[in-house]
Amino acid sequence: MSARSQSAAMEGSGWYNRHSSMQAAGNERAMAYWKDALEKVPVGGENIVIADYGCSQGLNSMKPINAAIDVLRRHVGAERPVEVYHNDLPSNDFGSLFQVIAGEPSSYMAAHGNAFPFAIGRSYFEPILPPASVHAAWNSWTIQWMSKKAADAPDHVFGGMSGVAEVRAAVAGQQAADWGDFLNLRSRELRPGGRLLSIFPACTPERRGWEYLGGELWEAVLDIHADGLIELHETHRVTIPTGVRSLADVRAPFRDSGRFAGLEIEHAEVLDGPDMFWEDLQRTGDVKYFASGWAGMARGFAGPTIANALDETRDRSAIIDAIFQRYEARLAANPQRHEHYFAVVVLAKVGER
Amino acid sequence: MSARSQSAAMEGSGWYNRHSSMQAAGNERAMAYWKDALEKVPVGGENIVIADYGCSQGLNSMKPINAAIDVLRRHVGAERPVEVYHNDLPSNDFGSLFQVIAGEPSSYMAAHGNAFPFAIGRSYFEPILPPASVHAAWNSWTIQWMSKKAADAPDHVFGGMSGVAEVRAAVAGQQAADWGDFLNLRSRELRPGGRLLSIFPACTPERRGWEYLGGELWEAVLDIHADGLIELHETHRVTIPTGVRSLADVRAPFRDSGRFAGLEIEHAEVLDGPDMFWEDLQRTGDVKYFASGWAGMARGFAGPTIANALDETRDRSAIIDAIFQRYEARLAANPQRHEHYFAVVVLAKVGER
Repeated sequence: MSARSQSAAMEGSGWYNRHSSMQAAGNERAMAYWKDALEKVPVGGENIVIADYGCSQGLNSMKPINAAIDVLRRHVGAERPVEVYHNDLPSNDFGSLFQVIAGEPSSYMAAHGNAFPFAIGRSYFEPILPPASVHAAWNSWTIQWMSKKAADAPDHVFGGMSGVAEVRAAVAGQQAADWGDFLNLRSRELRPGGRLLSIFPACTPERRGWEYLGGELWEAVLDIHADGLIELHETHRVTIPTGVRSLADVRAPFRDSGRFAGLEIEHAEVLDGPDMFWEDLQRTGDVKYFASGWAGMARGFAGPTIANALDETRDRSAIIDAIFQRYEARLAANPQRHEHYFAVVVLAKVGER
Repeated sequence: MSARSQSAAMEGSGWYNRHSSMQAAGNERAMAYWKDALEKVPVGGENIVIADYGCSQGLNSMKPINAAIDVLRRHVGAERPVEVYHNDLPSNDFGSLFQVIAGEPSSYMAAHGNAFPFAIGRSYFEPILPPASVHAAWNSWTIQWMSKKAADAPDHVFGGMSGVAEVRAAVAGQQAADWGDFLNLRSRELRPGGRLLSIFPACTPERRGWEYLGGELWEAVLDIHADGLIELHETHRVTIPTGVRSLADVRAPFRDSGRFAGLEIEHAEVLDGPDMFWEDLQRTGDVKYFASGWAGMARGFAGPTIANALDETRDRSAIIDAIFQRYEARLAANPQRHEHYFAVVVLAKVGER
């Protein structure tokens, strides 16, 4: 088992923006907690600083950032300059991000004057903002991505669903380490009283979720192998370095004292995730729309990672097309509700201004 | 005459970084003025803020930014956090920029700890940083690009070298307006005592420069038209929206009071530009290297703009290849020294901290 490949960015050219309605629906459920958290953030004479950790192409960040500007300026006046820092990997599609910021009607640049957008193309497993600078930090649907692949699974696209115990253990260990590192780094960047909200795929004590969408994706990879398009060793490498966390995993670093790295948990819960495509299917019977909707979403997050796992001599885009065509056909032939869960965690930086 | 096309970004995929040694040589000549200016910038308890207006893919910015960090930290200690803001158009190749920042040995991230790089994909003819935030601003080889094309020249790639008087007047008017707008906007972003250094193509009272490289590029465009690859109306639209400024143009806004928009000129001069490829040619006789060097440089700054001027049905990259192949052949057949001039202007923001 090797850890050869790093996480890739999301599918580019705006694809992720067009295929991330699952993530947007989850964000919607977190908005009330976000606004409550923002109300408690003290702002002095300094510019307001909002961080968007793992922004991808930015569309889903507009609503929470607008909310943050609204709430934080209510205390200090509408003229206070706002700095918004969007972070993602260097390979992220920052061109699409800047287009969204400049051109989308939902952009905070359309709604608010005196706001200044910036991008940071650097892994958030390094320091990316100056110490004690951030009032409000938004992090949605990113921390399921491990800082590196923990193990290649020979039998699934998700290591956490492998039948091999040591693969599952490697994933769990990496996820625990990443959560601690992320909290440590973000805590240094938050101002005293600053808040961080994080949303990510989760599991309940009883249910893991993702069996349907993950299982069919693995079968589509096997289909392509059976067709002779890729070799067996490539199927092992397509392991997508993501995983789910339980509430116990979330709370683990805080176990001893209730604090970790100067942070306290203000709220943590696991919610049942929505399946908008399934709801549409019940109403319309349009199985093609259902299948293309989920296939597009999965390609948005998994396509570049799978492409990087293929042998370098491959026509990677043709193979990715083939995998996701097969995947879409499988979903259409066997439509099921996508069972999944997600966590909403609100953290407060301890200390006085 | 229309002003249909906006400036395009530099050639992507790192091309500009590999073909901008002319610009780098000019920057080298400005470094002494930059360091002198930095010595006079007051820094209080705040983070050091350095702005790089018009960064392109960033390689040529590394040396001046390293110098700024060195000089500004000398007064406040090596631990002071430094924020570096790299600005260019939304369509800029920010992926290459972030790779340079993270991976180049010359990057300030390699030489200095506690430095935080950011990108801003937005025209600098808008506000892009919060008021009174910038200690040191670097701007090299960008302000020759007009905020919009002033006019299509029917007889040259540069409107300022057209035989049509109203084309030349439109260029001069646009350049004067842009210089004033740029100074106004940057002045708001500088801290009191902050310094802005700007380098850009210039002319002397006697000599304009760029006759050789500009003239041969226009001839290459005409060659491609003669070959039937593009139509006459397309040759008119390839006008590159750049121009040169004289010292009188630079000083014009400051004429009445010595100040403009809270800025004072600390230094302004026009220097004779280098031609490294010509010097190499004298030594080696390698005319192919000479021609491909200048053709690569010209493609770096002009390729995307020319591509945007072509009819939308064209195979644009094939035509750009054809133009620059023809251009390279012309330069090889008629090698001359590239006569050009550039201005180095240092501006100080008036006022106490």
